[in-house]
Amino acid sequence: MQTNRTTPSRLAKRAHYDAETIHPILDEALFCTVSFAVDGQPMAIPTAFARQGAKLYIHGSVGSHFIRELEKGGPACITIMLADGLVLAKSAFHHSVNYRSVVIFANAEKVTDEAEQMNVLALITDHLIPNRWNDLRPTTASEMRKTTVLAFSLAEASAKVRTGPPSDDPEDEDLPTWAGVIPLQTVRLTPIPAANSTGTALPDYLQ
Amino acid sequence: MQTNRTTPSRLAKRAHYDAETIHPILDEALFCTVSFAVDGQPMAIPTAFARQGAKLYIHGSVGSHFIRELEKGGPACITIMLADGLVLAKSAFHHSVNYRSVVIFANAEKVTDEAEQMNVLALITDHLIPNRWNDLRPTTASEMRKTTVLAFSLAEASAKVRTGPPSDDPEDEDLPTWAGVIPLQTVRLTPIPAANSTGTALPDYLQ
Repeated sequence: MQTNRTTPSRLAKRAHYDAETIHPILDEALFCTVSFAVDGQPMAIPTAFARQGAKLYIHGSVGSHFIRELEKGGPACITIMLADGLVLAKSAFHHSVNYRSVVIFANAEKVTDEAEQMNVLALITDHLIPNRWNDLRPTTASEMRKTTVLAFSLAEASAKVRTGPPSDDPEDEDLPTWAGVIPLQTVRLTPIPAANSTGTALPDYLQ
Repeated sequence: MQTNRTTPSRLAKRAHYDAETIHPILDEALFCTVSFAVDGQPMAIPTAFARQGAKLYIHGSVGSHFIRELEKGGPACITIMLADGLVLAKSAFHHSVNYRSVVIFANAEKVTDEAEQMNVLALITDHLIPNRWNDLRPTTASEMRKTTVLAFSLAEASAKVRTGPPSDDPEDEDLPTWAGVIPLQTVRLTPIPAANSTGTALPDYLQ
C-alpha cells in the first residue's frame, strides 16, 4: 500500500505496491532484517522468516531481547533485499545495483494459538528447506513453550526493483571502458552430512 | 567494543568484539542495512558500503530522505549478514543457520573534505568491483555535489558467528533423518556487456 512512509524520496518509478511484485521477493529471500527502536535508539537483527497470505512471520527464543521488544507491539520495519547484479557504467556516478527489495512497516502481533504457531514453524522451516518439515519428528510441547512466533501485516509493504543495463550519460557512451552487468546469485552447494548422518542417504528434497 | 547494547541476550558465546573477526566480515559483504528512527518509527534501507580502518562508509543522493535523516547525526544501527549455510538438525527446534553478522551502533558523520569524499567513492566502487575505479573517467565536480558521503565509527561494533554442524539432542541422535549443513554461497556469474560495450574486451579485473 502506498503511504507517506512507503513512498521513496528518490527514484519513485522503481517503487511497487502490488502483491504480484512483493510476494515473490519475500518467497525467494531466505532472511530479513527486523528493525525496532527503544527510546529512539534503532536496533536491527537479521533473521529467518516466511510469508503466508498477506503476513510475514518470524520466530525466536522467548528469552531474546529482540523478540521481547518486538512482542510489545511497537512500530517495526522489516527489510528484505535480493541482490541480482552489479551494474557497471562508464562513469562511477552511474554505477548501480540490480536488486529487488521490500520494506515493511508493521507492528508485531504475537501468535498465541498453538496450532497456528506450529503451522508457522512448519512454514519457516519449509521456506528455508522445502519439504523438510514432514521429514522431522514432531516438535514437542516443551520446544513450543521456548519459542515465540510473531506475525507482521504486509498492508504497508513496498518493493523497489532495478533491472537491466547501466544508464550512461550520452557523452560517456563512446568511452572505451567496459560497461554491463555482473549477475549475482546465491547457490546451495553439496550438503555436508553431520557425524550422526554419514550413513544416511541424502533425501530427494535435498538433491 | 562490548557495551550493554552490543551484548546479545542469547548465545553470548557467539559474540565477538575484535577487529580480526569484524573487519573481514565487512570486507566480504557487499551490502548492509542501515536503520534509524524518526519519532520512534524505525526505518531501514539496504545499501552498498565499504570499510577503511575503523570506519564504515556509505554514500547516497543529497536529495534522499534516508541520507538527509542520517546526516543529522542521530543514532543509527547498521546490520551486515553473510549467510554461510543452512543447518539441518534431526529436530525442527535445532535447525539453525551458519552465518557471520555484524551489528554497529554509531552516529553518522558527514564527510565534507573533497579529497576524502573522492577516496570514499573509490573505496565503495572497488569494494563492490575490485580495481574498477582506476578504469573509470574522473568523477566530476557536479557529480560530487550530488553525492553525500557518511562515515560511521566501528567503535561500538559486534559480530556474531555460527559455524559447524547441527547440535542435536542426545535422544535424537539415532533418528533416521538426514542432518547436516547445506552451504550457501553468493557467486558472480558471467558479465553481460551493455549495448555500448559489446565490442569491448572484458578487462582482466572482471575475468
